[in-house]
Amino acid sequence: MTDPVFILVRPQMAENIGAAARAMLNFGLTGMRLVSPRDGWPSSKAVAMASGAGRILDNAGQFASVADAVAEFDFVFATTARERYLTKPVMTPERAMEKTKELTGQGQRVAVLFGPERAGLENDDLVGANALVRVPVNPDFPSLNLAQCTLLLAYEWRRQTVETAPETLSFAGTEPASQVEVERLAQHYEERLDEIGFFFPEQKAEGMKLNLRNLWSRMPLTRAEVQTFHGIIRHFARRQK
Amino acid sequence: MTDPVFILVRPQMAENIGAAARAMLNFGLTGMRLVSPRDGWPSSKAVAMASGAGRILDNAGQFASVADAVAEFDFVFATTARERYLTKPVMTPERAMEKTKELTGQGQRVAVLFGPERAGLENDDLVGANALVRVPVNPDFPSLNLAQCTLLLAYEWRRQTVETAPETLSFAGTEPASQVEVERLAQHYEERLDEIGFFFPEQKAEGMKLNLRNLWSRMPLTRAEVQTFHGIIRHFARRQK
Repeated sequence: MTDPVFILVRPQMAENIGAAARAMLNFGLTGMRLVSPRDGWPSSKAVAMASGAGRILDNAGQFASVADAVAEFDFVFATTARERYLTKPVMTPERAMEKTKELTGQGQRVAVLFGPERAGLENDDLVGANALVRVPVNPDFPSLNLAQCTLLLAYEWRRQTVETAPETLSFAGTEPASQVEVERLAQHYEERLDEIGFFFPEQKAEGMKLNLRNLWSRMPLTRAEVQTFHGIIRHFARRQK
Repeated sequence: MTDPVFILVRPQMAENIGAAARAMLNFGLTGMRLVSPRDGWPSSKAVAMASGAGRILDNAGQFASVADAVAEFDFVFATTARERYLTKPVMTPERAMEKTKELTGQGQRVAVLFGPERAGLENDDLVGANALVRVPVNPDFPSLNLAQCTLLLAYEWRRQTVETAPETLSFAGTEPASQVEVERLAQHYEERLDEIGFFFPEQKAEGMKLNLRNLWSRMPLTRAEVQTFHGIIRHFARRQK
């Protein structure tokens, strides 16, 4: 599988090329091409902005036209913010990167075109693309810059290709408490609280005990936290004597 | 349902506050709070950077501490780039915004904390949070800036809450061709090509016709494109006579 290549078409500010390189590398992409960057190439401003992602710029090929830049690719996406009067599939970044995963998995080479900062891609740039990608922005404030657009596409690429557990519990040098440890903790509290007449009045005692047991079992306690709770009540009990 | 509020904790550069406001509004979020911005508040630099998103800054409350800023919220997320030695749930932006949708749907108020540019949130800022959010970046190049981090969270919020068709076909002022129109086009080509001896040799003719029919039906043609194809072959036929 080859990762998709991002092609920046007539980018204006060199800093934005550097920022795009960083955004790509944040999500593990390294293949960049440039079509006629306005301020020339190579660019020290772009390199300064790219900082740790400079090798993407070192390897970025420069091309005179979109046609030259995309010649060897099997499938080309073009990002666009505006409604276009061309008959083409229009995909969300999510769907586009899902499709990219399918295509690259079959050995196809995929490129994504990004337009110049101000105006975006022209119809001439889009006409050869197989599909358009439109980020579903707030229609009242749709202005995404070049680096943001590359960031979102690169993010979706990684989301589609690198499995990440949606939710984990980080344990700070400890493990989750076992059922029996929580049970012992609940018992410890119940006994000590019973001794000091906490479960009062009598007719409410059973309900109060039930609620307290439920509270302990509902908490995602670690072993260390169970020990802390034991320590607290032991300390109170000792002070009382 | 109330949208989540983004809380920028000790942001350093005023420009980044403006950029974060833009990123939020790109995906329809407007609630921002600030905890001790380094360069004071209000800030003309932040306003200049925010351009169209200035009203987010006008309404952004300023707070002296994280505790003050989160006091009225029911659930608080804290974004973090690093591994933390705190026992907490750690979620992807996707899962965090899915959970935010659930919680706000139940009438709960949700905030997301973002740390200062250089160092991120400190453990003291994190300890009161209900869960951490970690963007699944390339571990070899994990540096996301403040505006990028807000952009990704805001993007995920919109992705979770605003239904967008993953793939549509934009038709440029025309409609998809009907089955019968495609059928007539296929027939037209077959007849004209038959007249000029295209299907040769005889024993391959049936297979060639089948492939040609299959080609037409595989193409997602519009009405206008069907007319274009009719025009092409009509023109060839006329020139030949």
